[in-house]
Amino acid sequence: MTARGTNRPAGHDLAEMLLAELSAFSLDPPGHTRIAYGAGEQQAHDTIRAAAEVLGATARADAAGNLYLTLAGRRPDLPAIMLGSHLDTVPHGGNFDGAAGVVAGIGVMAELVQVGLRPPRDLVVMAIRAEEAAWFPLSYPGSRAAFGQLGAAELDTRRSDSGKMLAHHMRVAGFDPDTVAAGVPQIDPARLACFIEVHIEQGPRLIRANAPVGLVTGIAGGCRFPRARILGAYGHSGAEPHFARRDAVVGFAELVLALEAEWNRIETEGKEATLTFGRVESDPSQHGGSRVLGELGFTLDLRTGDDALLERLVARVSALCEEIGARHGLTFDLGVPFNWDSARMNGALIGRLEAAARQSDLAPPHMLSGAGHDAVTFAANGIPAAMIFVRNAHGSHNPDEAMEVADLHAAIRLLTRFVLDFDRT
Amino acid sequence: MTARGTNRPAGHDLAEMLLAELSAFSLDPPGHTRIAYGAGEQQAHDTIRAAAEVLGATARADAAGNLYLTLAGRRPDLPAIMLGSHLDTVPHGGNFDGAAGVVAGIGVMAELVQVGLRPPRDLVVMAIRAEEAAWFPLSYPGSRAAFGQLGAAELDTRRSDSGKMLAHHMRVAGFDPDTVAAGVPQIDPARLACFIEVHIEQGPRLIRANAPVGLVTGIAGGCRFPRARILGAYGHSGAEPHFARRDAVVGFAELVLALEAEWNRIETEGKEATLTFGRVESDPSQHGGSRVLGELGFTLDLRTGDDALLERLVARVSALCEEIGARHGLTFDLGVPFNWDSARMNGALIGRLEAAARQSDLAPPHMLSGAGHDAVTFAANGIPAAMIFVRNAHGSHNPDEAMEVADLHAAIRLLTRFVLDFDRT
Repeated sequence: MTARGTNRPAGHDLAEMLLAELSAFSLDPPGHTRIAYGAGEQQAHDTIRAAAEVLGATARADAAGNLYLTLAGRRPDLPAIMLGSHLDTVPHGGNFDGAAGVVAGIGVMAELVQVGLRPPRDLVVMAIRAEEAAWFPLSYPGSRAAFGQLGAAELDTRRSDSGKMLAHHMRVAGFDPDTVAAGVPQIDPARLACFIEVHIEQGPRLIRANAPVGLVTGIAGGCRFPRARILGAYGHSGAEPHFARRDAVVGFAELVLALEAEWNRIETEGKEATLTFGRVESDPSQHGGSRVLGELGFTLDLRTGDDALLERLVARVSALCEEIGARHGLTFDLGVPFNWDSARMNGALIGRLEAAARQSDLAPPHMLSGAGHDAVTFAANGIPAAMIFVRNAHGSHNPDEAMEVADLHAAIRLLTRFVLDFDRT
Repeated sequence: MTARGTNRPAGHDLAEMLLAELSAFSLDPPGHTRIAYGAGEQQAHDTIRAAAEVLGATARADAAGNLYLTLAGRRPDLPAIMLGSHLDTVPHGGNFDGAAGVVAGIGVMAELVQVGLRPPRDLVVMAIRAEEAAWFPLSYPGSRAAFGQLGAAELDTRRSDSGKMLAHHMRVAGFDPDTVAAGVPQIDPARLACFIEVHIEQGPRLIRANAPVGLVTGIAGGCRFPRARILGAYGHSGAEPHFARRDAVVGFAELVLALEAEWNRIETEGKEATLTFGRVESDPSQHGGSRVLGELGFTLDLRTGDDALLERLVARVSALCEEIGARHGLTFDLGVPFNWDSARMNGALIGRLEAAARQSDLAPPHMLSGAGHDAVTFAANGIPAAMIFVRNAHGSHNPDEAMEVADLHAAIRLLTRFVLDFDRT
């Protein structure tokens, strides 16, 4: 399984082979499906475990089913270097969202083994469970369970495909939801020097920058209004004159374009955020085609790594709703928002990764992650955390994800250098 | 049933009583329901027929179930004066949309009978079937059947509540769909001097004008795009940067506001039209809340009595879709439009109605009807046609229609004068 004795980098070949193997058993046209705590995720864990064991790593699964693969280092007494990501996918997603990060960790092991070097301290690759909220609508249940932080009530959350509870699926898969519910930590933060998550980029910035990898400086926090609506007055499309209309569609259009203008201002200031209307719905019982719409539902999703900017955005949305509502005789009901915290990646760790990148002839751009990742859990637990994004076309959460293994190998080379240099002064 | 010998106008009292009777048996909270070719519509026909017969009118139903109530005039050899409207409602609609016009015709008969005058020529009140497209998605099937112009294929149209064909419901109600399908005219255009439809206004113009009745100068034609859509690219709301987005929602908002601006320009030019987005829908399978929307469906409804303006509007919509699409990387697919013709009301007939209004101390404003009415069928068949709108709050096609009987009586007084003066030189 290693390429010892050839000129081909072992990390590249092993990554290619593992990704092909994962693809083969999780194909679910269009795309791939590995359901959290389902057979596909388990088979992915088994595949990764077998590859790590061939490389000489030891394996352990925790009460939640997270998998830890440890390649023993020269100084096992020092806190370990941890790499990892998740192995589940969204339904009919791509093969790379999640898996690329776990495969990268095994690739680093392969590169070390190929050149016959032990890591300076223990190198642990963690395969995390159930990251995709498409299955359980929870934030990072796998990594939070590892820290003993998954609430007992959250174990009652039902999986979208089966309708059965997380505790049930955990138990059926052979793990121990009672221990998880009791909040027993499965890893000791004091034994971790850092956590680094490799993940495909879910947007096109690295393609535009012509860079195989990027370094993530922070993960955006956000505020989502999942069930916002605009209330006006229904009327007959032919009979309701312009001056008398209270048309929810017009109010919606004004909000969309006012927030587009706000977004342009933010970018002119050199700041980063995203503003997305992820749902627009009128009432089907009013769809005769001859109705001025008196109601429109929508979802608004705001994200930024800059907490003050998020506050400003939320205030701006409220002010716009007031102003547009007053002008058109409409009521904006934003509903209950869902908020999540931003996370900063560790500056010193990013510095070490940059040094390793220079050694590897890479110049990774810095970038913000708009999407959430398990790295947030590690950062929240005080563990220096960082992320490496790998160039990828067509976004993620769809069958068209397109990462080149050569680009993933750039991350593997960078991390191999990083590991080898970790305890050099 | 008449108020002969009292000081109360017979038309007012009879209209009030008939509307109360219709309301009582068709109450279907919220609102009223009289299904086309259903029990409620039939009971309304029976009620109107009985009232007319008490007044001395003779009744005839045609092959499609339209009802003709004729009060014999002094000169039965001359073409008749016809008044009429429909008796069906939308589901959970108001009591007045349609019925007010038929009741007004019976009210005119009552006023004539009260003062002991025969009309100068035959006065026919026509109760028309199935005007509301909520039941059969057809334009004016009742009045077109009367002229032998309802196509055989249209009789296969299914009713929205039962799923059964128009021909079936016509037959079950005791009428003769085979004769209708054969295109046999049920009325002779040469025997009609004019057709006047009284109808509640479905907008607020008469309320604003503080006028009980208005005279309709034309009925808007229109162009509807029932299944238009905007195609862009789906993306992750956190990961897809601003510059890379092809967001269908932004394109939609720009189209809405550009057409609002166009509508303002049209009104500044002193022209009349309506522009309505009657449906906005994103794909529910993409509603996780974290998706940039790559597709949005909508319905656009354009109406005006000015055919050149309609042409200009349709061209403007196409040009905007091109321009906005190019700017945002979106494709606008407007789909197959549904067009309908405008109709002009007869100028000489409007002149006669104005003269009768002056005699009745009324100064009805002139107005365009944005909604379609059976009067279009009569105008299309070369019969001088006109409409009188009656003041009404809260629009129509909803339970909150609010017409005052006193306002309907203004139309009855005006028409009684009009009938009596019809053959005076």
